[in-house]
Amino acid sequence: MGRGRVEAFSDGVFAVAVTLLALDLAVGGRGHGTLLHQLGHEWPSYAAYVVSFFTIGVIWVNHHALFATFTRIDRALLFWNLLLLMFVVAIPFATSTLAEYLTAPGTDGHVAAALYGVVMIGMGISFRLILWWAIGHHLTARPMEPAERKAALRRFGAGLFAYVGATALAFVDAYLTLAICGAVAIYYVFEQTPGPEPASDTGGTA
Amino acid sequence: MGRGRVEAFSDGVFAVAVTLLALDLAVGGRGHGTLLHQLGHEWPSYAAYVVSFFTIGVIWVNHHALFATFTRIDRALLFWNLLLLMFVVAIPFATSTLAEYLTAPGTDGHVAAALYGVVMIGMGISFRLILWWAIGHHLTARPMEPAERKAALRRFGAGLFAYVGATALAFVDAYLTLAICGAVAIYYVFEQTPGPEPASDTGGTA
Amino acid sequence: MGRGRVEAFSDGVFAVAVTLLALDLAVGGRGHGTLLHQLGHEWPSYAAYVVSFFTIGVIWVNHHALFATFTRIDRALLFWNLLLLMFVVAIPFATSTLAEYLTAPGTDGHVAAALYGVVMIGMGISFRLILWWAIGHHLTARPMEPAERKAALRRFGAGLFAYVGATALAFVDAYLTLAICGAVAIYYVFEQTPGPEPASDTGGTA
Amino acid sequence: MGRGRVEAFSDGVFAVAVTLLALDLAVGGRGHGTLLHQLGHEWPSYAAYVVSFFTIGVIWVNHHALFATFTRIDRALLFWNLLLLMFVVAIPFATSTLAEYLTAPGTDGHVAAALYGVVMIGMGISFRLILWWAIGHHLTARPMEPAERKAALRRFGAGLFAYVGATALAFVDAYLTLAICGAVAIYYVFEQTPGPEPASDTGGTA
Repeated sequence: MGRGRVEAFSDGVFAVAVTLLALDLAVGGRGHGTLLHQLGHEWPSYAAYVVSFFTIGVIWVNHHALFATFTRIDRALLFWNLLLLMFVVAIPFATSTLAEYLTAPGTDGHVAAALYGVVMIGMGISFRLILWWAIGHHLTARPMEPAERKAALRRFGAGLFAYVGATALAFVDAYLTLAICGAVAIYYVFEQTPGPEPASDTGGTA
Repeated sequence: MGRGRVEAFSDGVFAVAVTLLALDLAVGGRGHGTLLHQLGHEWPSYAAYVVSFFTIGVIWVNHHALFATFTRIDRALLFWNLLLLMFVVAIPFATSTLAEYLTAPGTDGHVAAALYGVVMIGMGISFRLILWWAIGHHLTARPMEPAERKAALRRFGAGLFAYVGATALAFVDAYLTLAICGAVAIYYVFEQTPGPEPASDTGGTA
Repeated sequence: MGRGRVEAFSDGVFAVAVTLLALDLAVGGRGHGTLLHQLGHEWPSYAAYVVSFFTIGVIWVNHHALFATFTRIDRALLFWNLLLLMFVVAIPFATSTLAEYLTAPGTDGHVAAALYGVVMIGMGISFRLILWWAIGHHLTARPMEPAERKAALRRFGAGLFAYVGATALAFVDAYLTLAICGAVAIYYVFEQTPGPEPASDTGGTA
Repeated sequence: MGRGRVEAFSDGVFAVAVTLLALDLAVGGRGHGTLLHQLGHEWPSYAAYVVSFFTIGVIWVNHHALFATFTRIDRALLFWNLLLLMFVVAIPFATSTLAEYLTAPGTDGHVAAALYGVVMIGMGISFRLILWWAIGHHLTARPMEPAERKAALRRFGAGLFAYVGATALAFVDAYLTLAICGAVAIYYVFEQTPGPEPASDTGGTA
């Protein structure tokens, strides 16, 4: 089974999820105060939108890089991938809930931040399951060396670890959760994925 | 006519349908009680979301596996496929109705569960029509042997049979319908599709 | 410029448009009468959903068949295609308006049906513009013969003509508009497109 | 890293964004006056819908033309592309806000027009960043000559310049902003992109 349709389906889900994020930007409409006031009041929506947009974007980039190393896809991997997508699709929900309750008094802001963190943890675990399954079942083009495997697992583990921290800190400060999740997205933007096909570079020289 | 665009269009529909499921997760917002209470109260939404997500996911995986065996697509198959997609696209509607009424007193819960079951039956019948048409019109790479054909029809028939049962039991207990549909999804996750290209394996040995 | 991305983008738009149709199926929720009553009351939604779903499906199939005959795509064609997609994307809006007002007393039902017809006319004209431009600018694999060109224009003209009639009759009876649009979809389901590559059949015999 | 999945993901986002525009066309429903009156009252929605649809369409066409000149995609380009998509996805929000407030008395109309302009500026800057990065990092098939590079930057700069003007004029007249953005879309429809593969034309003559 080739990876064409898995990637096409996943890309479709990522694309729709990222676009649904923007549904939450809507203002209340006339009769809800001046537009400028409404836009100013909605700043948690914009912050959450940017963080979630780049988080899904980063997941997509990493998904892209990871799947490019696979030479075959088995049926189990399809379902680990569905599990990942189930959490990706829940991100717009978690984002709009966070945007709604971030500035709420009492415990609601903390609960919303924890919900956001839990969705990110679910996503991170699913991503790690895909990686772990692919390594264990030799789905990559060439067997990973122990050091390489450790590096890959550590790299994806870093984000997961940060998400666990972000969720725990949700009960201290909801803004902190959003800030940490934003920092994770920035980290993955700048971090380098190990080149999936180093052989093709040296192939030209030989 | 190649199968590229049929698969691309179908993948797009599956991807959007799966993402729209998540629109139903939304909470009421401030002034509807504490967020924790709202989230707890919405558990039928999460259960229905997970079952429907994996059901659409399984349909996608089976669609993928089935279409991979086709060497050509005729115009009639395009329309059987549209019929399937029409039911797939109705799943988010049936899901949100079930989530809304699952815990409702009186007959509403039963009606919602029956609606959910009917959509699944429609989907199952469409899938079987695709299979039956493809076998009858020799759209597969090699003619199916009688035993193979029987196995394929039985395999897809099993789900359909379970959906009919789930719909009948809707009038006994709405939860039962959801549980059976969830069980069908789990069954198809673990069940093995007959390899579409067994020839390619022996090809290497010859 | 290849036709890959035009088809991919168009398929995406068709897929999303078809899925958005289902958003209109939603019932009012608890406190709006029994679910069975609500579902029964919503029958114009289901009728409009099925007609619109197959209409978009048929447009997609015809789009598919037409673009398969193109060997190149020029910039103008991209914009005629955008015009077509602009009307396709308006179909869910016209559908939900028709579903809402079909059973309304007074002129509203007629206006809703006329709106539905006008969107179909706009779609039909765009489709004809694509065909006319492609013929005039020799974008097809081989120049069309006069008889063939006439047949193609007549074939797409038939639907357009029916849509004009459906719109005019909207002021007599709104149900008639929906029925005619449904009949057009059924006509295109059963009608045969001229094979885009007849040469490949005879190629094997020579 | 090939450009296949970047284009597929971007096409998906463009397709969903363009379709979400139509969500804003919805009328209020029964009890909000006659349908004809409602449709007439909603004309800013239609104007904004057409302008935004063709704006996203033009971005897609230019995105298509630009990416066709790339022989490789680096990780940074993926993120510049995400930035572009983040603004594209915000267009439906800016469009519905403009449609809601265009005819509003007081400053709200001006603020809505300025918001629309700012999203367009963000989109224009992102597009220019992609172009600038691709030129600077030699991602195009052949190095651009100085004159060519200047022409490309000027061409994309023209739209950006117009969007800055449209935003500034938002505080004079909101309609002017919409008109200028519409004019930019028309300009790009008729403007010719430099052919990405001029060699293929002369190749036939040689």
